[in-house]
Amino acid sequence: MAKEIERKFLVSSDAYKSLASGTYFHQGYLNADKDRTVRVRIAGDDAFLTIKGITEGATRSEFEYDIPMDEAEEMLNELCIRPTIEKHRYVIPWAGFIWEIDEFHGENQGLVIAEIELPSEDTEFEKPDWIAEEVTEDPKFYNASLVNYPFKDWPEAEQKKVIQE
Amino acid sequence: MAKEIERKFLVSSDAYKSLASGTYFHQGYLNADKDRTVRVRIAGDDAFLTIKGITEGATRSEFEYDIPMDEAEEMLNELCIRPTIEKHRYVIPWAGFIWEIDEFHGENQGLVIAEIELPSEDTEFEKPDWIAEEVTEDPKFYNASLVNYPFKDWPEAEQKKVIQE
Repeated sequence: MAKEIERKFLVSSDAYKSLASGTYFHQGYLNADKDRTVRVRIAGDDAFLTIKGITEGATRSEFEYDIPMDEAEEMLNELCIRPTIEKHRYVIPWAGFIWEIDEFHGENQGLVIAEIELPSEDTEFEKPDWIAEEVTEDPKFYNASLVNYPFKDWPEAEQKKVIQE
Repeated sequence: MAKEIERKFLVSSDAYKSLASGTYFHQGYLNADKDRTVRVRIAGDDAFLTIKGITEGATRSEFEYDIPMDEAEEMLNELCIRPTIEKHRYVIPWAGFIWEIDEFHGENQGLVIAEIELPSEDTEFEKPDWIAEEVTEDPKFYNASLVNYPFKDWPEAEQKKVIQE
């Protein structure tokens, strides 16, 4: 078991794309409760099953297991809640921490979210200048929420805020 | 991935207890949807995470992974839907097949269910004389249902049918 502190931000330009190559992710949820999520993820050549517990501020319990690729594909195609999520992830080291930038596709096309994992909730860190507004506490940006309420269904004003920030 | 055919029956006496020693099980659900279940189970000294797909008649998709005992305990104690399920399981070979008899405790005390796993839906098999009515198609006997609607909450007439059959 590991506790992770994740902070999420909007992204104001695609400058991040020149800093890393993207890895294609396909993921889906067997459960997208607010209290607990069970996620199937294919990340490049690897596949995982990940269980996350209740969000308390930015702290969550997390359990992750490697699973065979063919079983991950079968769960994504047959068992997971529709739609599943497709995105490219760009992993960018910056001033001693790692940023993960997710560029979504499909029903979430247009949405880009940056995430940084930190050792504690009050750790200070430097932001690249293409990092915009923090959205850590906003549940509509959780990957699990993007299944039930994808970006394409958001009101136009909300979409613009994300893209133009 | 394996397809399993399971048939469930009520039990008319405790004669099964003289045929095997019971193993203590503690299990809980991270998801108890009708379309898909995610189960954490401690069975004696082993711990598993099991994902089962949609029930079509008696056929379900199933994916199972070994997990560390301490992570299973943490998920059962902190993440699983309340109540978790406790039972003793008796495994009894009989006429070429394996019967599993579950004697429930806690909120399901009084309930005993026998299950046989078969290679196909029309496979013939011999029943021990302590096997009673078939309940394969009745969703209230699913382990996942016993979390939301435990035996102690069933109407007295339904409880009597199970115990007196």
